[in-house]
Amino acid sequence: MKKLIFTFLNCYILGSLSISAQQPVDYVDPFIGTTNYSVCNPGAVCPNGMMSVVPFNVMGSDLNMYDKDKRWWSAPYEYNNKYFTGFAHVTLSGVGCPELGTLLTMPTTGKLDVDYRHYGSEYSNEQATPGYYAVSLKKYGIRCEVSATTRSSAERFTFPKGEGHILLNLGNGLTNEVGGMVRRVSDTEIEGYRLVGTFCYNPQAVFPIYFVMRVNKHPVSAGYWKKQPPMDGPEKDWDPDQGKYKLYTTYGKELAGDDVGYYFNYDCAEGEQIEVQMGVSFVSIENARQNLNTEQPQFAFDNTRQQARQTWAETLNRVTVEGGTEAQRRMFYTALYHTQIHPNILQDVNGQYPEMESFKIGNINKGNRYTVFSLWDTYRNVGQLMTLLYPDKQLDMVRSMIGMYKEWGWMPKWELYSRETWTMEGDPAIPFIADTWLKGLCDFDIDTAYEAFYKSATLPGKDNKMRPDVDNYYKRGYVPMGEYAADMSGDNSVSHALEYYIADASLANLAEALGKKQDAKRFRQQSLGYRHYYSKESGTLRPINQDGTFLTPFDPKDGADFSNAPGFHEGSAWNYTFYVPHDIKGLARLMGGDKKFVQKLQRVFDEGLYDPANEPDIAYPYLFTYFKGEEWRTEKIVTSLINKNFSDKPNGIPGNDDCGTMSTWLIFSMMGLYPDCPGTPSYALTKPVFDKVTLHLDKRYYPKGDIIIDGTKPLKKYRISHSELVH
Amino acid sequence: MKKLIFTFLNCYILGSLSISAQQPVDYVDPFIGTTNYSVCNPGAVCPNGMMSVVPFNVMGSDLNMYDKDKRWWSAPYEYNNKYFTGFAHVTLSGVGCPELGTLLTMPTTGKLDVDYRHYGSEYSNEQATPGYYAVSLKKYGIRCEVSATTRSSAERFTFPKGEGHILLNLGNGLTNEVGGMVRRVSDTEIEGYRLVGTFCYNPQAVFPIYFVMRVNKHPVSAGYWKKQPPMDGPEKDWDPDQGKYKLYTTYGKELAGDDVGYYFNYDCAEGEQIEVQMGVSFVSIENARQNLNTEQPQFAFDNTRQQARQTWAETLNRVTVEGGTEAQRRMFYTALYHTQIHPNILQDVNGQYPEMESFKIGNINKGNRYTVFSLWDTYRNVGQLMTLLYPDKQLDMVRSMIGMYKEWGWMPKWELYSRETWTMEGDPAIPFIADTWLKGLCDFDIDTAYEAFYKSATLPGKDNKMRPDVDNYYKRGYVPMGEYAADMSGDNSVSHALEYYIADASLANLAEALGKKQDAKRFRQQSLGYRHYYSKESGTLRPINQDGTFLTPFDPKDGADFSNAPGFHEGSAWNYTFYVPHDIKGLARLMGGDKKFVQKLQRVFDEGLYDPANEPDIAYPYLFTYFKGEEWRTEKIVTSLINKNFSDKPNGIPGNDDCGTMSTWLIFSMMGLYPDCPGTPSYALTKPVFDKVTLHLDKRYYPKGDIIIDGTKPLKKYRISHSELVH
Repeated sequence: MKKLIFTFLNCYILGSLSISAQQPVDYVDPFIGTTNYSVCNPGAVCPNGMMSVVPFNVMGSDLNMYDKDKRWWSAPYEYNNKYFTGFAHVTLSGVGCPELGTLLTMPTTGKLDVDYRHYGSEYSNEQATPGYYAVSLKKYGIRCEVSATTRSSAERFTFPKGEGHILLNLGNGLTNEVGGMVRRVSDTEIEGYRLVGTFCYNPQAVFPIYFVMRVNKHPVSAGYWKKQPPMDGPEKDWDPDQGKYKLYTTYGKELAGDDVGYYFNYDCAEGEQIEVQMGVSFVSIENARQNLNTEQPQFAFDNTRQQARQTWAETLNRVTVEGGTEAQRRMFYTALYHTQIHPNILQDVNGQYPEMESFKIGNINKGNRYTVFSLWDTYRNVGQLMTLLYPDKQLDMVRSMIGMYKEWGWMPKWELYSRETWTMEGDPAIPFIADTWLKGLCDFDIDTAYEAFYKSATLPGKDNKMRPDVDNYYKRGYVPMGEYAADMSGDNSVSHALEYYIADASLANLAEALGKKQDAKRFRQQSLGYRHYYSKESGTLRPINQDGTFLTPFDPKDGADFSNAPGFHEGSAWNYTFYVPHDIKGLARLMGGDKKFVQKLQRVFDEGLYDPANEPDIAYPYLFTYFKGEEWRTEKIVTSLINKNFSDKPNGIPGNDDCGTMSTWLIFSMMGLYPDCPGTPSYALTKPVFDKVTLHLDKRYYPKGDIIIDGTKPLKKYRISHSELVH
Repeated sequence: MKKLIFTFLNCYILGSLSISAQQPVDYVDPFIGTTNYSVCNPGAVCPNGMMSVVPFNVMGSDLNMYDKDKRWWSAPYEYNNKYFTGFAHVTLSGVGCPELGTLLTMPTTGKLDVDYRHYGSEYSNEQATPGYYAVSLKKYGIRCEVSATTRSSAERFTFPKGEGHILLNLGNGLTNEVGGMVRRVSDTEIEGYRLVGTFCYNPQAVFPIYFVMRVNKHPVSAGYWKKQPPMDGPEKDWDPDQGKYKLYTTYGKELAGDDVGYYFNYDCAEGEQIEVQMGVSFVSIENARQNLNTEQPQFAFDNTRQQARQTWAETLNRVTVEGGTEAQRRMFYTALYHTQIHPNILQDVNGQYPEMESFKIGNINKGNRYTVFSLWDTYRNVGQLMTLLYPDKQLDMVRSMIGMYKEWGWMPKWELYSRETWTMEGDPAIPFIADTWLKGLCDFDIDTAYEAFYKSATLPGKDNKMRPDVDNYYKRGYVPMGEYAADMSGDNSVSHALEYYIADASLANLAEALGKKQDAKRFRQQSLGYRHYYSKESGTLRPINQDGTFLTPFDPKDGADFSNAPGFHEGSAWNYTFYVPHDIKGLARLMGGDKKFVQKLQRVFDEGLYDPANEPDIAYPYLFTYFKGEEWRTEKIVTSLINKNFSDKPNGIPGNDDCGTMSTWLIFSMMGLYPDCPGTPSYALTKPVFDKVTLHLDKRYYPKGDIIIDGTKPLKKYRISHSELVH
């Protein structure tokens, strides 16, 4: 009886006071970050879900400002585009290379047309909340709604009266790979797979995605399509389908090809709703079916939608903010939402997953096996956020990475569905995992992790896959130019070395904590080699020729805004010069003392040399906290950067979100603390945006529980250790 | 003891007197009919085998005079071509539309190249005997040998020292369909499937072929390839594989696409032999594997080759000829060989097969389920040859056709792997099966067969799939022009009707035999409607307009040599006018009497109006036997036609062999008898080519056993009933 009353009251409060009693989930606006190259999307996804169901509007029409094939383009959705060609299943969010974004479902009406250049539609009335997206197709008068479970989609299409169709397009998508198969299982179920991969144009990083798709209404007819290769010569006249989308109206078994699809035809009553479900797996069709059967035993769209929202509500409740503007709360919780999309759960409901680089089937009995590790980005702050707010997830992610090493012999760098894509550089697993361990999350196989770290930090020559240009790094302390000729982006020698330095600094910290003094000494020594790069003449780090002289001529501004310049990857010397967070004081000495350091760093911001859209200089604003009396600069700059670069609008993220890295910068910055040195368990502090921030820490890992950050009082200190913070 | 001595003597004789004691199998030259558009091929196949392993030399180079894509081309092999691109698995022989001829295996040496335009080779030292083909590749110094079991291939490649490769090309082939999948099972086994079909450019007649392929040596490496679609715009520069054959060196699961393949790499010793086996199925990959495991449990090329030859020897031993020239014996037994290639066994070793037009899996417990029924051709004489010499096979073929009706509701017309391709016209299953029954082979479900016949011979309107223009045929007795607009070859109204007449004549005979007098009367009546077409003015059959008048202007020579002319399909009025074999005397009356008939028929031969390269007039030479005193014309013309149109050379068949129809004309003609009226159990007689022909009839069906035809004595009569012949 008591319970019933409580429930009633609860409903009453939610109903009548919904504006003032909003929960975190209510503040999320999935449209934030869907333009301005942030490449997030408003699709439906569950936290870290394998499945995402995302409106696809980047192909097929000149109505779109951004076309996936007309420029470098890495998002399935762009806010300002206009031509919708379906829902992609399984996508990347906030990632800078085109990948996944296939298995496109599309409802249409009228005469069947399976060419996406024709069947796409303009749209209106978009709506997006965590786990739900809806849109109205102008051309067809169809309302589309989609939701998701962890490994399956739920889609509901409301048709006008007349001929209706549901299409599955396997030929197109964001990935640059092609080729797939679809097979009719019954008149309401199809299954198949598709090749995806070549992430960042790595030709060998390919893998299959398997699916099972169901509709909840028997079609009046159904069939396949395949785009036929064009023919030459006389055959052109004999084959009416050459060069066109051919419909297979009577075929009933596997159909494979570069550009294939399947259609269901219906006679719809006015307002008739047809539901679609798709289960996916990276192991097999059978697992995709089991995933779907387990997570959605029936067709129940509203139920799935409600469950997805509930899961998001629970996930986002880890932080409570008070004060700030509505817009700031929207920015904050949407940023938190963005950090909970990648990495993704890889294993199927039966625990099976594809092992790293082998196509063997692994099995995980406990916790999750994660994939999509954009570590060059996420080791800088996302791991730290997870360690603090979601330690259970962080541990599973660390365990997943160790699993990859066990299966393959190397830690991941930029892992995507058990393929190492070798995107970006460095040895990011070391700071990612060392940071976790040093913050007291130790429930993982540290011996194996250390074995992996030791290997990549000491193995010479070309056998060192993780550090492909390591010999001079060991010998001279730096990587000279031209050491790694195969790098497609040209010479990135300084960027490579800087990543090795921070990795080795982290590893030295870890080795010390593990009592490995000799190792610690070696790695500490390695981590300080950055000093070779400092040029008094330019006042920056500067590429070194093979003969040991500095690159000349040299302009430290070269390489800004993602242009190519020798030595630096996706940045100028300015974006990299301060990136020795493990030895800020040492760098200051090289620069002529603290004052010179502070002046130079201030100059970066004053002269627009800071790049808020990429990772290398992401922690720069917080480096002032190392210098007594200069901490006010951090607060001033961070406030300015938040206001200038972030908002609650679709363009509210300043560049690729990079699996939540940009969003995490915002989260930490709005909360008033920042983990500026990966692998060192400490934070810079600044004034939070909110009056009060409560971190509801997981008591299994942090027995003290909640941390409360009071934003109304002046700061007493500007740096804090992790241990101090959580105690 | 006696038996042992006998065996010894036998061997001795074969060894020492091999030239004079040749067996039928020794006379077969598979190169006969491999040019001159006969479209037979010299590949390895077992009698009626599902598998055939055929040199493929019709693509990839201007060295070839005949290219599959530069003209209408229906053969995987042409004798005068020069550029070999591998061995096709499962092909059609003597068929006029391009189909099958895929799953191309190819051995190469040197640097791996998977583009058939590069990896093909000129060749020499071709050798072909029943069940065996060998060739030397000039470019590589590789000797290739292939053989087959019923459902699997055996291939042996002898490599020179150095890098060697074995390729499987799934992308190319004779069929106009594309799309397939290949999957690595182990380092020595792959599996997959490919879509084939669109026979005679029927877009919906498609079906999958499944395969399992093995090599008997572990490769040093292996991988996949796929031709990547070309990209436009900036992407072109980022994807090094766009528009090219991309190699997948580390991928290990399914690869699907329009143009995919698989390679095995080897380090070969000089003269090293590597064997390949492929099992196929039209049901599933698992069945393909079971077929291979059952028929070739080990790698034993020589054994497989020997078994294939032995099977052919037993098959061809049904007829013994004595006398005649060596060339005539080669012509005769090669023709007999050509009649034993199609139809093909469709069921797997476990009895499963794809049901007609449904993709359900059927199961046959006894006998064989056959496919590839080119009935417009083969009902004219091949069925009759089978009935006489291979009654067991003929009965299985009839049972297969009845099975199709049970599964699908219609008898086959031109059935290909359980798809009805609707090629050519008429209702050929009726004369094919009626002829069999009326000759005393009755061990099949005649009730169901009759039900099927009755349906297609009486059902009005568009529901009659078999006879799409039947309403006026029933009403007026003929098909006027323009009745069947969808026919791609233009109007073929007279040809359609002529096929219905012969079918209904056969059906009348059958109905009479079954005691169905009323039916017999109706069908006899229907069969005589041909008289409407006779034009006194032209002296030929002539198309009739919708208003009942004859087509005017009209030249009975129009349509000769496969040109298009209204009314007639693949022929002129002259090629069709005498095609009422069930009422020759009635036709003679229309023409003004026997003498006029004989004069007109003689004129056909004298004036070159006869087409020896196609079926409609194939029995014309034998029609003189209906007219007393004129029979000498048959002997004279048949002798002349044999000598003019047939030889033991590659160009020794005058046109498409049409699943053995041309070859069967030669066989009957050389034996001195011909079944000139399908569905009527009688033969015309003429002088045989040989001194003595012994037909070793199957005593289970023909208790009297051997029939001996004496070619040294003058004929006493010129027509004989089947009953008389076999008794």
